[in-house]
Amino acid sequence: MLEQFHVPEQDRVYVDTERMRAATEALFMRCGVDEAGAKASTDVLLTNDLRAVETHGVSNMMRNYVASYMAGTLNPTPDLKIVRETATTANVDGDGALGIQIGGDMMQIAIDKAKQYGTGAVTVFDSGHLGGCGYYAAQAAEQGMIGLCMTGGHGTRASGGMLPTFAAESRLGTNPIAWAAPARNQHPFLFDVACTQIANNKVGLARRIGVPLEPGWITDTDGVPFNDPVDPPDEYFLLPFGGTRENGSHKGYGFAAVCAIMCQTLAGVGMAGSGNQYQGGYHFFAAFQIEAFCDHDEFLDNMDDALAHLASAKPAPGHDRVLYPGLIEGEETEQRLAEGIPYHREVIEWYESIGAELDVPIDLP
Amino acid sequence: MLEQFHVPEQDRVYVDTERMRAATEALFMRCGVDEAGAKASTDVLLTNDLRAVETHGVSNMMRNYVASYMAGTLNPTPDLKIVRETATTANVDGDGALGIQIGGDMMQIAIDKAKQYGTGAVTVFDSGHLGGCGYYAAQAAEQGMIGLCMTGGHGTRASGGMLPTFAAESRLGTNPIAWAAPARNQHPFLFDVACTQIANNKVGLARRIGVPLEPGWITDTDGVPFNDPVDPPDEYFLLPFGGTRENGSHKGYGFAAVCAIMCQTLAGVGMAGSGNQYQGGYHFFAAFQIEAFCDHDEFLDNMDDALAHLASAKPAPGHDRVLYPGLIEGEETEQRLAEGIPYHREVIEWYESIGAELDVPIDLP
Repeated sequence: MLEQFHVPEQDRVYVDTERMRAATEALFMRCGVDEAGAKASTDVLLTNDLRAVETHGVSNMMRNYVASYMAGTLNPTPDLKIVRETATTANVDGDGALGIQIGGDMMQIAIDKAKQYGTGAVTVFDSGHLGGCGYYAAQAAEQGMIGLCMTGGHGTRASGGMLPTFAAESRLGTNPIAWAAPARNQHPFLFDVACTQIANNKVGLARRIGVPLEPGWITDTDGVPFNDPVDPPDEYFLLPFGGTRENGSHKGYGFAAVCAIMCQTLAGVGMAGSGNQYQGGYHFFAAFQIEAFCDHDEFLDNMDDALAHLASAKPAPGHDRVLYPGLIEGEETEQRLAEGIPYHREVIEWYESIGAELDVPIDLP
Repeated sequence: MLEQFHVPEQDRVYVDTERMRAATEALFMRCGVDEAGAKASTDVLLTNDLRAVETHGVSNMMRNYVASYMAGTLNPTPDLKIVRETATTANVDGDGALGIQIGGDMMQIAIDKAKQYGTGAVTVFDSGHLGGCGYYAAQAAEQGMIGLCMTGGHGTRASGGMLPTFAAESRLGTNPIAWAAPARNQHPFLFDVACTQIANNKVGLARRIGVPLEPGWITDTDGVPFNDPVDPPDEYFLLPFGGTRENGSHKGYGFAAVCAIMCQTLAGVGMAGSGNQYQGGYHFFAAFQIEAFCDHDEFLDNMDDALAHLASAKPAPGHDRVLYPGLIEGEETEQRLAEGIPYHREVIEWYESIGAELDVPIDLP
């Protein structure tokens, strides 16, 4: 994540992971989610926070989720149904569940099918926000497989949606894609990106932190890009990654369309959508068994070599280090497990205030 | 493709597809490829030319392929071996074959496995250039499936390779990725991009056509970007798509690393490589059976709706039309089948000259 998106030092409150976990699980259970669902949901958010993917941790998301449960637009006790299944695939009706509550189980179906048959893939419709895709891709990697996860769809939103290249109307969500692969000693490969210049949550993050957005990231409501740094406006569209056609915005747009096809169209859902379309609501999970292609131990050694090779590239003038996807996330996790997670003090205040309101004991520093 | 890469009008020679097909098949057979292989190879290049993907048609590629066959670095009579196989996967030793000769057969293995089990995936090592990825992804779509194809690897090249974000040394190829899905009446979805700002072949194309490269597309050999339009230099590195970190170059770099893992590491090949590494030489093919997830007819109708919805978005100021991946390619194919393919006159001259040199009759206008 770009430096300006980290919580400013003077606003940081370091919280032990397990304390935040307990507080967050308690809030989910107060919303009607059972203990297993509360633990699963919380683990997604805390893992994102540990990886410094703060856009998809508790800071941005919990207030939305709690409000949606309270408003009755999320189903805390979903009755999941597999509506179609083959040896390697499943299509699941999410029954209005929050994505983070069921996503781990859905990826596990793909993993289990891949264990048996070599590959596995699962689509899910009628489900809420997935809390990013990295967690689920990494879940496959932790079980020794290559994992792929996408979420999003063809959704259009008046504000906050993605503009196709050359367009002035939104046609897609931010449509993130994640891919993960295990290594032996290196931090695992974990690639997790939105197909927009920035995840929509970064706009909220920038607003809270008080930093401007970069030129070429968003447009006004007529589709005209802001070509100077801009404070987050109330209404805007997101540009596909690349920003301009010359810098590859058609690639961001195209990957977003792939994501929409794999998550929504393949799940059997047409343009008008069906069921709960809360924040996208369509997901795709896939797993590839490594032993189905090559020797697993050799793969791990080759991954170590390849990742070290990427990170050892000579830096260009003005830079001091070359990264690979997952390296910073791995390092941050180690550091945050030891030192606590740096939250904005405003997040702690929100937890205390919602705890008081809902009569949930909150014990954060 | 950006307008400046099309053949300038005064240099265009329109050639009927079947004449170019006959000339190209004859050249492949003169290089020692059997008739089936010559037909398969030619169909990849001609299909690219029909789709106006001129970087990966006969213009750029045939002279390289013929030179490689003549130099003995490509095997015209490969003995393919499946070195590992499961219900849904295969890993294939390409025995030094040119990728376009065997790629269609490799994707067909993935498609056939997906027909039986829902999904299928194939890796190939020790194989030459694949002629782009779009052809193979579209092959799955033509058979009613979703297709995914990648080619490339962890290869480093002194010039023409991709720089990781912040790096001054190449660590990856251009590592293209293609994804295709069928529709009922709309031109099929076909997304096919390099993970660099431009495909390496575009540098050659720009040189032949005599147009400069855009700012932020390539760097000098120290990794410093050319920030003004530049005539194609002899030595250069390619930037990941996005160009700068702020415009998402880490996303181009990350997708390229995904491609390297799926094509090379998953094929069991380590950093140092093995066998023939001609122009990358590692491929990944995957197919997803639509009926394994949802009703096939509904999917086709939903795709028609979704693609029409994308293309009907109101254009932004300064633009007259919004596209979706595959729309222009479909329209160009119809037009070129009717009018012939516009080649640069220099390409026709090369065919006539190599035909004379190798004693192969060439009958082009």
